[in-house]
Order: sequence, then C-alpha cells, then structure tokens
Amino acid sequence: MAAFLPILAWGQAYNREVLTGDLIAAVIVTIMLIPQSLAYAMLAGLPPVVGLYASIMPLVLYAVFGTSRTLSVGPVAVISLMTASAAGMVAPAGTPEYLEAAVTLAALSGVMLTALGLLRLGFLANLLSHPVISGFITASGILIATSQVKHILGIRGGGETWPEMLNGLVAGLGAISWATVAIGVPVLAFLFWGRKGLKPALQGLGMSARTADISAKAGPVVAVVCTILAVIGFDLGTKGVAVVGAVPQGLPPFTLPSVDPGLIAQLWVPALLISIIGFVESVSVAQTLAAKRRQRISPDQELIGLGASNIASALSGGYPVTGGFARSVVNFDAGAQTPAAGAFTAIGIALASLYLTPLLFHLPVATLAATIIVAVLSLVDFKTPRQLWAYSRADFVAHAATIIVTLLAGVERGVIAGVGVGLMLYLWRASRPHAAIVGRVPGTGHFRNVERHQVITLPHLLTIRVDESLTYLNARWLEEYVLELVAERPALRHVVLMASAVNAVDASGLESLEAVNHRLGDAGVGLHLSEVKGPVLDRLQRSHLLHHLNGRVFLSQDQAFTALAQDTGAPPPPVDTYEARGAI
Amino acid sequence: MAAFLPILAWGQAYNREVLTGDLIAAVIVTIMLIPQSLAYAMLAGLPPVVGLYASIMPLVLYAVFGTSRTLSVGPVAVISLMTASAAGMVAPAGTPEYLEAAVTLAALSGVMLTALGLLRLGFLANLLSHPVISGFITASGILIATSQVKHILGIRGGGETWPEMLNGLVAGLGAISWATVAIGVPVLAFLFWGRKGLKPALQGLGMSARTADISAKAGPVVAVVCTILAVIGFDLGTKGVAVVGAVPQGLPPFTLPSVDPGLIAQLWVPALLISIIGFVESVSVAQTLAAKRRQRISPDQELIGLGASNIASALSGGYPVTGGFARSVVNFDAGAQTPAAGAFTAIGIALASLYLTPLLFHLPVATLAATIIVAVLSLVDFKTPRQLWAYSRADFVAHAATIIVTLLAGVERGVIAGVGVGLMLYLWRASRPHAAIVGRVPGTGHFRNVERHQVITLPHLLTIRVDESLTYLNARWLEEYVLELVAERPALRHVVLMASAVNAVDASGLESLEAVNHRLGDAGVGLHLSEVKGPVLDRLQRSHLLHHLNGRVFLSQDQAFTALAQDTGAPPPPVDTYEARGAI
Repeated sequence: MAAFLPILAWGQAYNREVLTGDLIAAVIVTIMLIPQSLAYAMLAGLPPVVGLYASIMPLVLYAVFGTSRTLSVGPVAVISLMTASAAGMVAPAGTPEYLEAAVTLAALSGVMLTALGLLRLGFLANLLSHPVISGFITASGILIATSQVKHILGIRGGGETWPEMLNGLVAGLGAISWATVAIGVPVLAFLFWGRKGLKPALQGLGMSARTADISAKAGPVVAVVCTILAVIGFDLGTKGVAVVGAVPQGLPPFTLPSVDPGLIAQLWVPALLISIIGFVESVSVAQTLAAKRRQRISPDQELIGLGASNIASALSGGYPVTGGFARSVVNFDAGAQTPAAGAFTAIGIALASLYLTPLLFHLPVATLAATIIVAVLSLVDFKTPRQLWAYSRADFVAHAATIIVTLLAGVERGVIAGVGVGLMLYLWRASRPHAAIVGRVPGTGHFRNVERHQVITLPHLLTIRVDESLTYLNARWLEEYVLELVAERPALRHVVLMASAVNAVDASGLESLEAVNHRLGDAGVGLHLSEVKGPVLDRLQRSHLLHHLNGRVFLSQDQAFTALAQDTGAPPPPVDTYEARGAI
Repeated sequence: MAAFLPILAWGQAYNREVLTGDLIAAVIVTIMLIPQSLAYAMLAGLPPVVGLYASIMPLVLYAVFGTSRTLSVGPVAVISLMTASAAGMVAPAGTPEYLEAAVTLAALSGVMLTALGLLRLGFLANLLSHPVISGFITASGILIATSQVKHILGIRGGGETWPEMLNGLVAGLGAISWATVAIGVPVLAFLFWGRKGLKPALQGLGMSARTADISAKAGPVVAVVCTILAVIGFDLGTKGVAVVGAVPQGLPPFTLPSVDPGLIAQLWVPALLISIIGFVESVSVAQTLAAKRRQRISPDQELIGLGASNIASALSGGYPVTGGFARSVVNFDAGAQTPAAGAFTAIGIALASLYLTPLLFHLPVATLAATIIVAVLSLVDFKTPRQLWAYSRADFVAHAATIIVTLLAGVERGVIAGVGVGLMLYLWRASRPHAAIVGRVPGTGHFRNVERHQVITLPHLLTIRVDESLTYLNARWLEEYVLELVAERPALRHVVLMASAVNAVDASGLESLEAVNHRLGDAGVGLHLSEVKGPVLDRLQRSHLLHHLNGRVFLSQDQAFTALAQDTGAPPPPVDTYEARGAI
C-alpha cells in the first residue's frame, strides 16, 4: 500500500521540526513561483492565470503519489513550448479552443503517464538518450528565448520554427516600441546580472551566505514589483507597453477536459511526447536530489505521481506540468523535508490567485519575457556537442540531428528525429556484434583471437567466438558471417561456435542457428557448439536444434578442438560443378 | 565495378553448358509463371495482363544487378495483397487511378530499395524478426485464401480485414453461381492433390523422378488448359462463370509513374513496408539457394537489384515485384546456373504476352482463384506458434500480435504492430541487463556471483559485475541499480564496477557513470573501476570521468579487492539528519 501512496511512509514520521523546514521552503518557492507561473503560461500562449491554476492542485496530488521528497511540480519552460506547439495546431492562441486543447493535453498526458506507471512501462523513456535530451533542451532554449524577443521589443512576431521566428522579428523591426524596450532591456540586464551578482551583493550588505543565496532567487519578484510601479508611475500602459491586464480573481475552476475523438486523435502524439519529455526531466531532477540525501525514488511510481498531477491540472483548468529543475533545487536548498512543502506551496499560490491577481494588472509582458529568456538561456549548452564529438561520433550525430530538426522543424519532429536517429545507430551497431576467429594458445587450453595472438588453427576446423547474445537484430548477420567464412575455405570440415559470451538466444537467433546448421549440412560441413551457458543450453533443449545438429555440443572449447582436430579423414564436401570451375 | 554489376563476374565464365541449363530452366519457369502472374495480378486487384508485364523487364534488370544466381523475381502473393491494400486506399479497384497507384507503388518501392542499398541500410530489415515475419506470412495466407473464396463461389465480396471478408462471404451466400462452383471446386481439389500426388502418379506412368518433380509444377497449367476448354465446350461464359475476358496483346507499354506529391504522401508508408517485406522474403530465398551451392549473395547489392527490378516494373506498366520462393526453387531445381535464366524467362513471358493472350479470353477467374488458394495455404503455418510458446514467450507474443493485428486491422498495421511489439520487448530486456554482486572465491583471485558461489565479501566494499555494454538503453538502470544497492548498505565505503564484460560505453553510459560517481561522492562513497577493456579505457580517457573519479581504476579485480579491503579507517559518510532518524 505504501508503494502506491508514499505519503503513508513519510506522513507517519511527520513532526514539528519537519513542518518548520517544509513551511520555510514553501514560502520561498511560492514567491519564486508566482512570476514563473505567469511567464510560462504566457510562453504556452495561455492567459497568465492558467499558470497559477497549474501550480495548485498538481502540487497537492504529487504530494500524495510522488516518491521524491523535494521535487516541485508545476509549469516548466520546455513543456510550455511543447504545449504551445501542439495547441497551436488545433486553434490560434487566445481562442477558447486553444485553451481547451491545452487542458486536454494535460488530461491525455495524465492518463498516459498513469497508464505507463501502472503497466511498468517507464523503461520506454530510455529511448531518449542523454545526447538527444541535451540536444532537445538546448534547441528548445534557443527557440523559447527567440520567441520572447518580440515582447522585449514590443513588436508582433510568431512562428513555430527558428527561421520563421527570425523572419517575424526582422519583419517587425520597423515597429519597435521604445517604451517597452526601456522596460524590457533593463529588466533583462538586471536578471542576467542577478544570476551571478545578486548573491555577493546581498552578502556585501551583511546577509549570511545561505540567506543571500535564497534571497537572490527572488530577483524576478523584485523586477515584477519595480516594473509594475514604473508602469503605474509613468503611465506606460498608454504609451505602448503591453501589460498583463485583468487576471481573474479566485480559485481554479473545476474543468472537464474534452473527450472529442477528433481532438484526441490530433493531440495524442504531442501528449505522448510531452509525457515522456516531462517524465525524463522530472526523474533526472528527482534522482539528483534524492541521491544527495541517500534517498530513493521509484521511477514507475513517479509516473503515477506525475500522471495524477497532470489529471489534477486538467480538472482545475491548468495545462501540462512536470517536476522543474530550478524550483526543485530552491525547494531543496530552502530546507524542504517532505512533499508537504509542495502542498504548502499550493496553499500559497491559491492565496495569491485569490488576493494578488488585481496587483498584476499593470505587470509588463516584457518583464515576464525577460524572466523566461534569462531562465532558458541557462539551458543552452555548447559544451556538450564538443564533448560528444571527442567521445563518440554516433552520439554526436544523434545530438546534432535533434538540435537541427528541433530548430528547423519544431519540437515534436525534433524529439522524434532524435529518438529515430539514436535507435537507428543503436540497431546498426547491434546488427554487427563483435565476433572473432579464435585458435589455441600453444601449450594451453586457452583460445584467443587469431588477429591479436599467435595461436594454432587448422585448415579443416574453424572456431568462431561471438561476443554477443544472438537476437533478431543480429540473426541475419550471424548467417551471413558464418556462411561467408565457410565459402572462403574450401577445405573446411567443421565449424565450432564458441558461445561463452552468448547470454541469450531468442527465437530468431535459434532459427539462424538452424539455418546455418542446415546450410552447412548441405555443404558437408559439421556445426558444433562449445561453452554454451547453462540457461542458454536449457532453453535450446526445448527446441529441435540439438536433435538435428549436424555436429556435437562440447562442454569446453578445448575438448572441441582436441576431438575435432583428428577428424580430417572424411571425404571433402560435395561441391557444385559450376562453383568448382572457379567462377566466383 | 563487379560489385555493382554482378553480371560482369558470371558473364565472363558463360559457355554453352551453362546456357543449356539456363534455357531448360527458363522454359519450365515460363510455363509455371504464366498462370501465376495472371492470378497474382488479379489478387492485387489489377488487370491480369499487368501480372505478365511485371514478369518481363524486372527479370532482365535483376539479371544485371542481382547477386543471386537462381532467384526468380516477379509478382508474389503477399506483395500483391499489400499492393491491393495500399492502392485500395487511393481508388476503387478497376479504375485508372487504382492502376496508377499500383505503378507508383512499384516506382516508390524501387527508389526506396535502391536508396537503402546505396546507403547500406539493409540492416533495417533486421527489425522484422523471424516470429514477426512468420506471423505476417501466416496471417497474409489466411487473408489471401479468404479473399479468393468469392471467386470460387461466383459471388461478390470484399473487405480489407478478415471479419469484413467473412461478412461479405456470408452476405453473398444466397447468390452462389453453381456453374462457377462446378469449375472452381474440382480445380481446387486437383491442385491440392497435385501438390503431393502428381509426382508419384507421373512416376507411376514411367517418368524419372526429376522429370516427374518438374512436370508436377505444371499442374496449374493443366488446370488452366482444361478449364478454358470446359468454358468453350459447355459455353459456361453465358451461364454465369466469370472469365478473364479480353487481355491486351503486345509488349509492356512504357509507363511514367505519377509524381503527384499528394499520391506519394499517401503511398510512401505502404511502399516502404512493401519494400522491406519484399526484401526480407527475397533475401531469405536467395540465401537458402546460394548456400546449397556454397555461393554467396550480398544483401546490400540485393537491395539495388530488387530496386532496379521494381523501377523497371513501374516503367513497363507493372506493379511491385520481389524474389518469389516457389518460382525460385523451380528455377534452381530445373538447373538454372546464372541470372541469364531469368532473362530467358523474360523472353518467354514476352512471347506469351505477344501471342498467347487471346487464348486466355475464356480462362475462368475461379481457376486463378484456386491457384492462389492452393499456393498461399502452404504459407499458413500452425507449428511455429507452438514452437515459439515452448521456446520463448516474448517471441510468441510478437508472433501472435502480428497475426491478430494483420487479420483484424490489415497488412500494414500488422507489420507495424509486429515490429513495434518486437522492438518494445527487445528494449525492455535491453533496459534490464544481467548484473551480479561478486565476491572473492576463497584462496583464489577469482570473483564470482554471491548468489551462486560461497565467496568472501566485505561490508564496506561492494563489487558489481555488469554483463553488458553500457548504452543509453540501460543507462538509467545502471544509476538506479547502483544507487539502490548503496542506499541499502549504510556501512558502505567503496563500490567497484567490474567491467570485464563491458564491450562499449556510449555517451549516455558515460553520463550515468559520471552521475553515479557524483552521487556516490555526495554520499561519501568511492567509485572504482576494475578490468576495463583496452578500447573502452582508451575512450574513457577522452572524457572527464577519469579525472573526477571519486576512486581508482584497477587493472584486475583482485588488485582492487586487496587494495580496498584495508581501507575502512576513514570516517563514515555524512548522513542527512532526516534520513538518520530512520524514516524511510
């Protein structure tokens, strides 16, 4: 029971000391989350209040079902971008249909995550390799930052892909709103400086290192307050500075997501991608934080926790959420001990949406855009491509393909391209496993690769060591490899497959062994096996291979070599007349 | 050059003896091919003459570019069914648009196969495991046989899936044409009997075994001739027996496939599936035959050979072709020595389409349907599921999923489901590799699994042997596995990863090692490596891991154990206060 409701485990040990830690963390995260939620909702093309809605119920549900003690769920940058891309296919931003699509995405994603968790299918997230994730996040960061430049300049723009966005910016350059620039650029500069400079500055004013560190995270709140005051003081709202405007006051509305089959058919692929990307991001953060305190998370239960959070988001008028890196680290550093900190944060945001929203009327959109730009540019990573190039060209190719396709064709195609290229490269390698012709090391019972050691081989006896399980991905290779070696050796009488490194043989591998056995039989060559592992031999005994084997099964390669070394007396295998004339 | 034009290799050694073998085989295959080509074109929903067109130019091109000496290309049953399914999505059978779609499929398939060959991407065919192919062929056989029953009964019918076909048959039962049944059922019985009984019967009449064997293959021709005579003799054409009717006389017309982007967008997925299924079928046949004579085929060059054949088919008004099993075996048994036999067969079919087509006017459609039913029912295989169930449940699941989805949702979805399920099961296994905690065998330097042997372990030292390369598919598993073991052992000071079975570490595996190193460092535990293979170590030296490693790299596990066994003096790792209170 505690496996499905982790709250039962930590709830029992709850006491005042833990409560204090959780409450302090909740206050700090709440202050940080308010501008972030508004900004990410804007990035998703949604009314800012939807960001607040998505930061209330999901936190409560994660506190009940999640396994990380310190993960903080809510709107995040990359998922917001993916939401904008998917909902934008259904309807233009700003319409009720667009909002409905975003809510439906959260519902679909919630159902998918829960189903993956219940079916223990979390391993599917493995398809996203580190280079693909890193490439996707870099490219998303570039896309997101570019998409926000228009708000800093006060111009129109748009586009799903990088070239479209750049085009839009260039076309709008003539209409720059200098009043907006006068707000946006200083905020941008302040926030950039604040990432590194605010903490030492606060320490210089006498704060302790820890207080300064946490207070520095409130930089965006300072920017929000100052720019609201500037808009009011200089009446910038009438001078072309776009402001957030009226934000509805109140708790999240109960919302029923759409069950229109047409809409679901349009949204299920993006919802699946949002689910998997969100899960991967969230689990990485949760694992990093858990390891610091020698705690554990359960990835399959995390799927259920995130699934419940997204369903809760959909039912309360929110959009897809996941565990965010920045907020989780703040939560952890501020001393959160249990998921109750998340529930307290939810209360804080609920109070904000009840009482603070009127204050946000004059908040400039440029301030939110600057918050987003500063947050996402830290995601852009130029070191990884260099390291990958040095370490593994195949991984570099997957990384580069993900970046290029994401920038040029959008986030969905970018993820799919990354997974596809990664899988193709993996399958390519898996279809050509390592194998070696081996011979006996003189005077010993050891057998080694003929290309690396001075070993004894015999013209009528060929021993092949396969360093890989025999699966359907390399079954065809096995046939080709063995038959090619045999075709090159007219004097051959016996082939021994040394199976010391074969951990498994699937049905396709078995069928290939049967085909090799049959074809070698046709050519008058015996097929023998040596050093077959116990579990593999048990399984082979359930097939027909060993009954029809055109040779023997030897316990050790040494026995095989000794027994077959003498067996040269039989007539040479029959050779086809056309072949015998020497034509290739 | 000879690699791209295999004709250069065998052409040089050509002489009168080889010519005789090729000519005899060509005559026999031509006689067998005529009814087969007409029947398969009908199965594909195309005019019968298209089957003849698809049996001329493709054979000539394969003779130039193919690497199998005895493969015979042309229309085959499964590809005809797939063509019908794909072209049926574009337009109803019988319309010019339907024919255009079939020709375009051949063109697209030709271009794809050639591209896959030039890019050396033949390994992608590995995605079709033996259980998936076998399931697909069984289900296709059932679908094809069912689709032809209507022609035997002389009723209307239709449908893409098995339930639709059965429905159509039941609905048409009231309108059975008994004159058609009187033709169809005896032909069916004769052909069924002929598969086993004709050869002994001919031997009983004094034929040699080999002549009887080859003559028995002409059973369909006998049925064709007899039923044509019956239709003429009893004037069955006016009594409700459907006949082939006027077949245009002449050589294949030069045809330009459509380059309409809309049509190509509709057809590229089916064309890709047709290409891959056709390639897999063809290569299996070619390998089987080549091995019998110790010859070799080159799979990547085979792609080019089949690609050229399909382009030729499209340009001469045909539809997708591949190497067929039945006809290739006849070609081989009849003594074909080189691909020239195929070119001679092409001449035979060309003569038939010039001079024999008027004779086919009265050929009953029921005769062709019976030919198809008898041919495809031999594809249906009920032994494989039983063997798979006994040998490997995972493979059984992939096989069953392919059969069920093919029957219920059609051929395309069936192939995709089979590939998807097979890949998911593979990834599931690949994401959970075998690993063991090992300890020292007393008095030796050997280390073995603690669960299978009596070995020495120490509470502050954990040695893990991973029996698999570290790739992105198991990177997440590695982190979870190691961190879980560490979380269970509060006294732990050192973890040694014994890498004797690790053949490669990709960038994701590297990042997992770095994460494990970092997290163990946070927990005050050292991470050490032992028995790292040379190439793996070379590559790791190009990364930062070894610089930051929170431990050492040992040449042998024995050295690691000896060195770390003493190192218990250091203080225990720092433990988080909450964790220390005993909460889980």
